[in-house]
Amino acid sequence: MTRIRLGMVGGGNDAFIGAVHRIASRIDDRYELVAGALSSTPEKARASGEALGLPRIYDDFKQMAIREARLKSGIEAVAIVTPNHVHYPAAREFLKRGIHVICDKPLTSTLADAKKLVKAAEASDALFVLTHNYTGYPMVRQAKEMLASGDIGNIRVVQVEYPQDWLTEHQDFKQAEWRTDPERSGAGGATGDIGTHAFNLACFVTGLELESLAADIQAHVPGRPVDDNAHVMLRFQGGARGMLWCSQVAPGNENALRLRVYGDKGGLEWAQEDPNYLWHTPFGEPKRLITRNGAGAGDAAARMSRVPPGHPEGYLEGFANIYSEAAEAIIAKRNGTPLPDGVTYPTIRDGLKGVQFVDACVRSSARDAAWVTFR
Amino acid sequence: MTRIRLGMVGGGNDAFIGAVHRIASRIDDRYELVAGALSSTPEKARASGEALGLPRIYDDFKQMAIREARLKSGIEAVAIVTPNHVHYPAAREFLKRGIHVICDKPLTSTLADAKKLVKAAEASDALFVLTHNYTGYPMVRQAKEMLASGDIGNIRVVQVEYPQDWLTEHQDFKQAEWRTDPERSGAGGATGDIGTHAFNLACFVTGLELESLAADIQAHVPGRPVDDNAHVMLRFQGGARGMLWCSQVAPGNENALRLRVYGDKGGLEWAQEDPNYLWHTPFGEPKRLITRNGAGAGDAAARMSRVPPGHPEGYLEGFANIYSEAAEAIIAKRNGTPLPDGVTYPTIRDGLKGVQFVDACVRSSARDAAWVTFR
Amino acid sequence: MTRIRLGMVGGGNDAFIGAVHRIASRIDDRYELVAGALSSTPEKARASGEALGLPRIYDDFKQMAIREARLKSGIEAVAIVTPNHVHYPAAREFLKRGIHVICDKPLTSTLADAKKLVKAAEASDALFVLTHNYTGYPMVRQAKEMLASGDIGNIRVVQVEYPQDWLTEHQDFKQAEWRTDPERSGAGGATGDIGTHAFNLACFVTGLELESLAADIQAHVPGRPVDDNAHVMLRFQGGARGMLWCSQVAPGNENALRLRVYGDKGGLEWAQEDPNYLWHTPFGEPKRLITRNGAGAGDAAARMSRVPPGHPEGYLEGFANIYSEAAEAIIAKRNGTPLPDGVTYPTIRDGLKGVQFVDACVRSSARDAAWVTFR
Amino acid sequence: MTRIRLGMVGGGNDAFIGAVHRIASRIDDRYELVAGALSSTPEKARASGEALGLPRIYDDFKQMAIREARLKSGIEAVAIVTPNHVHYPAAREFLKRGIHVICDKPLTSTLADAKKLVKAAEASDALFVLTHNYTGYPMVRQAKEMLASGDIGNIRVVQVEYPQDWLTEHQDFKQAEWRTDPERSGAGGATGDIGTHAFNLACFVTGLELESLAADIQAHVPGRPVDDNAHVMLRFQGGARGMLWCSQVAPGNENALRLRVYGDKGGLEWAQEDPNYLWHTPFGEPKRLITRNGAGAGDAAARMSRVPPGHPEGYLEGFANIYSEAAEAIIAKRNGTPLPDGVTYPTIRDGLKGVQFVDACVRSSARDAAWVTFR
Repeated sequence: MTRIRLGMVGGGNDAFIGAVHRIASRIDDRYELVAGALSSTPEKARASGEALGLPRIYDDFKQMAIREARLKSGIEAVAIVTPNHVHYPAAREFLKRGIHVICDKPLTSTLADAKKLVKAAEASDALFVLTHNYTGYPMVRQAKEMLASGDIGNIRVVQVEYPQDWLTEHQDFKQAEWRTDPERSGAGGATGDIGTHAFNLACFVTGLELESLAADIQAHVPGRPVDDNAHVMLRFQGGARGMLWCSQVAPGNENALRLRVYGDKGGLEWAQEDPNYLWHTPFGEPKRLITRNGAGAGDAAARMSRVPPGHPEGYLEGFANIYSEAAEAIIAKRNGTPLPDGVTYPTIRDGLKGVQFVDACVRSSARDAAWVTFR
Repeated sequence: MTRIRLGMVGGGNDAFIGAVHRIASRIDDRYELVAGALSSTPEKARASGEALGLPRIYDDFKQMAIREARLKSGIEAVAIVTPNHVHYPAAREFLKRGIHVICDKPLTSTLADAKKLVKAAEASDALFVLTHNYTGYPMVRQAKEMLASGDIGNIRVVQVEYPQDWLTEHQDFKQAEWRTDPERSGAGGATGDIGTHAFNLACFVTGLELESLAADIQAHVPGRPVDDNAHVMLRFQGGARGMLWCSQVAPGNENALRLRVYGDKGGLEWAQEDPNYLWHTPFGEPKRLITRNGAGAGDAAARMSRVPPGHPEGYLEGFANIYSEAAEAIIAKRNGTPLPDGVTYPTIRDGLKGVQFVDACVRSSARDAAWVTFR
Repeated sequence: MTRIRLGMVGGGNDAFIGAVHRIASRIDDRYELVAGALSSTPEKARASGEALGLPRIYDDFKQMAIREARLKSGIEAVAIVTPNHVHYPAAREFLKRGIHVICDKPLTSTLADAKKLVKAAEASDALFVLTHNYTGYPMVRQAKEMLASGDIGNIRVVQVEYPQDWLTEHQDFKQAEWRTDPERSGAGGATGDIGTHAFNLACFVTGLELESLAADIQAHVPGRPVDDNAHVMLRFQGGARGMLWCSQVAPGNENALRLRVYGDKGGLEWAQEDPNYLWHTPFGEPKRLITRNGAGAGDAAARMSRVPPGHPEGYLEGFANIYSEAAEAIIAKRNGTPLPDGVTYPTIRDGLKGVQFVDACVRSSARDAAWVTFR
Repeated sequence: MTRIRLGMVGGGNDAFIGAVHRIASRIDDRYELVAGALSSTPEKARASGEALGLPRIYDDFKQMAIREARLKSGIEAVAIVTPNHVHYPAAREFLKRGIHVICDKPLTSTLADAKKLVKAAEASDALFVLTHNYTGYPMVRQAKEMLASGDIGNIRVVQVEYPQDWLTEHQDFKQAEWRTDPERSGAGGATGDIGTHAFNLACFVTGLELESLAADIQAHVPGRPVDDNAHVMLRFQGGARGMLWCSQVAPGNENALRLRVYGDKGGLEWAQEDPNYLWHTPFGEPKRLITRNGAGAGDAAARMSRVPPGHPEGYLEGFANIYSEAAEAIIAKRNGTPLPDGVTYPTIRDGLKGVQFVDACVRSSARDAAWVTFR
């Protein structure tokens, strides 16, 4: 019953995702935020920490890792919500001191960093949880459960897309700025920021492993140093084929992640902007609309739900589900008990795959969309 | 910055709405739940309080009100989440001791109680906030703002409906049981449980005052002592007319509250199950889909939003918005400062109107749907 | 195989519904338009007939009825597509000469005329078909078939609505003009023009008979002599209750006829603007979307379909279905054979009910929405 | 005003598309079907012709072409609705005798035939119209008009997809059989049958010319000799990029052709199954839903519409629009007058591009999805 003591790196005053992590950690009351190094700028770190009323405020993450590890009631877990290039150096400091890491995606800004971080994580006794938050949506869990139980048969076709429109024109506010700077974001623009989500979602739901991809990536806004639109063809092990489209220049699309999977017995369709619905299309029967916690929804979705059907849960609840899954794992670790049935969360290996996905897209595109073997 | 110390009456282990209130109070980190009398059964009250790790657990609400009022750091506000008939006696105890009340709807189970509670609230220095939570949705605020600014002109027609299906068959689990018992729920079944929400929403958004209504209420499930379906015609002051339908026996409708308002310049349409969207239909122009925090959404919606457009917020966030509005009011009260611009929440007067609505429906229906003047 | 020789009364150059009838009669190639009195203004009748290349053009309908009845290959059927007040005098002339009548709705502009026309039709050997065209939609037939077979159990609640927006402001073009003139349109405005469609649809699909109604009708546009918005509560024989809303002042609604029926086992929902879909909501199961000619659609819908699912059929095809049903009946009459299985069309009795519906709405509203027994 | 005398090749009793062409030719009353060679099997040709009451019935198309060309009132145009491999030999016979050809798609089953047919058509004085019927939808015209007028700016991204599900399992009925036989259908399966539609639609609406494509085509049903799913990346002249997905093995998709186009100022989205709607998404403004004949729809859509907004037009009306455009062209030819403003229809050059598209997909896929220059 004791809440998990949580720290945070990044997520200062004007950050978007830091606030999301904080809300997500609060919704199910499993965490208490007690320490933070909320900015790489010390004054801002301090001001932001004070604004939140944090008991312990640090100027930088290394200092925080060192001190918290020594405290009797220091943090048990840290949320890393910085720009991508800081994920690796920050995570490393906590992992090596046995502090669990809950890290935003993509895992790192470079493949080299990703590989080093995998080593660091695997050498550590601490857990590593990557917030591919869309896997926390109840109806995503429902889809995964249905696919696993054979409801749509052998998978043939996977269509996943993630269009947005916020970078349709050149932007220089902070959220846009670091995301379009290869030094901080990595070699991928849209591919890294949202393509990794789409790729992760498709793999999570289907359980398929990618075999190879062919990517045509583009930067449509003049002068943009990273891609803002990508077309990717996918070949999965076992014969399924797919397409992935991600874009940040598709006006009218706010955050339109969508997954469609078709097998020889039926299909499943899910859209993030209307996340409480899952279409199930058994071949030869009328389409069925399964709703979160509604008739036809199973245990995997129920585990992730708080309120009855028709009372929509959203992005923050989906994100909170990742935090709750992490809490289950942390508590099990704390108590030396096995992970409860059904608990699952994105791991460092999923994070590595995401960085490999970006790397493969960039390499394929440089070779005029040649097929690149995955791994 | 100090969190508001909150207590709770009702909301024990198996309650639905108590858990909702607790999450809602946490989302924006403005409250800390420190005391509770979570059940009218002392053992259950105790077990439920312990399960939540509450610092102070009480066997009954009166004892809680008395002691907390005497504590130096006693609760500043209490959430009352019991069955309807307990709202009045519980609220009274806290109001008379200057403890702010956040109470679930409908206000009371009887009109007599409602009137007494209005007196109690108006005699108290404490605030009274009624959780007509649907008024907390950002796009509901957006609709209200647009109507107030004349975007759709003079209102002519108001269509509001709230169909559900969970009572299509006889149910005897706890949630259904007290809601269909006139002693605990009040004279209205669907009218009280959800009709009051629909009525409140229509009045909140339009700013109109009801003049009279004609209601045809029914109990379709044999033996049900309260209505489970109601058809109501509405006449508003100033000439607008409307219809209200609420039902708990409409299969396929989970929680399908929907409001449509038409004026001489355009219309607005909103549906609770897809709450991030608001249709604006200016006469003679294409329909426009305004999204939460998206293009075309104004300040009133932005105040109530946490994440960017396309990242859906849902029922719990809407509910949390009522808690945050209450927090603004409580803090202003604490500090003796004026209520910040834009802060609004359902009051005891709105609660009285809801109980009057139920009463009017029952009276009209008893007179074969004759028009009943409202008030 | 020989096409039915068809005449037309009304439907001159600038008429909307005349052109619709002509297309509808052509789609399935069962009719040939060979004669017409297309306007009450002789020059316009002549010019319009010539523009269509009609073999036989008449100045007025009476002359046409007399002469065609005498021709060896005169018309077998006549389509009457005039303003409402002409339906009775025109239909009478053809019926008494044994020429089948296909008449637009509402049946007549007054209840007295309607009763006289019923007598005329029942005294005649000719058929009378009323073009309540919405009953021709395949998914409306599907709904009727499912209700009849008990798929949703005993009907409890019927919600039907028909909002439009084209009369939101005062209009003086021809279509609007006669429809808002009680001399030509009848005592009902929206109630007569579209309320009759909504009422007919609800009765057709459910098979229920109305027992009584209570109506609150309004004219929102200043100076309008007939209603433009109506709220009606319905009580059906056997205990089902319903609401009907029709409006011509609801901006954003083009032709939004919608029917929802709920029984003790499930529900059905259909919307005219998206007519190829029917929601079936069996209680306790996921909602199902049945599509025209798709999986789950039955014989009644298949009879009315021309193309595979996913190839949308629309308003004109639904209208053509009424013409094809009429053709089946006319051919059966011609050949002295029984009506083929499944053939059904709106009759003069349905037309009488429509006029009675308008009359009842007007009378109820004049008595402050008192219940009026339906017949 | 005289109707165009029309013949038909193919389209016997059990054919789907022949019946569609016949209805399409009737809807606007511009044609009269007077002759046919409705099957390659003489008895069936005769029986089908008699069932339709055709004045002149032929055993084969060559005989028909010869005789009709000699008749004083012989056919002026012929509809060719056979399996693909017959298009070329049949069209040639009519073209060389000056009879206009209205031919179903794809143009031919082989690229060689297509090139020969282009020569034949260009050597003939007769018109050649290809029924890429989806270009006849009013909202497709609306989209084309808006793109041409710069409403969405410079095009960056084109997403077009055409999933169906009817070949999810092996089928051996007639419609499926010839479409999966390379001898009759051509080298493409889904690519030829529906990919050509998708490709044509994208080019028609955007006005873009394809530069190159990379295709990964698959046959998911064991033993199927042609593709049933195709993933294609597109590069257009001028820098726009796109993706095309077509599938006949995507359960739940009936005929789900969908086009999305994004430019630097906004986007447009249209779906064939709900064809009366067009989403316009100007960047930085709320999305707008433009409806056929409704507010915001322009002249190009109005030309193609028959009934008011909210009265849905569908597949058959869209198809009829191609016939009406062809009629305009034929009448202009007949009268020696210029083609009226706005008249447009798919030509033999569009047909050639379709066959080149299939050829390019097959060649690219054989080279492991290498980029293939389009011509």
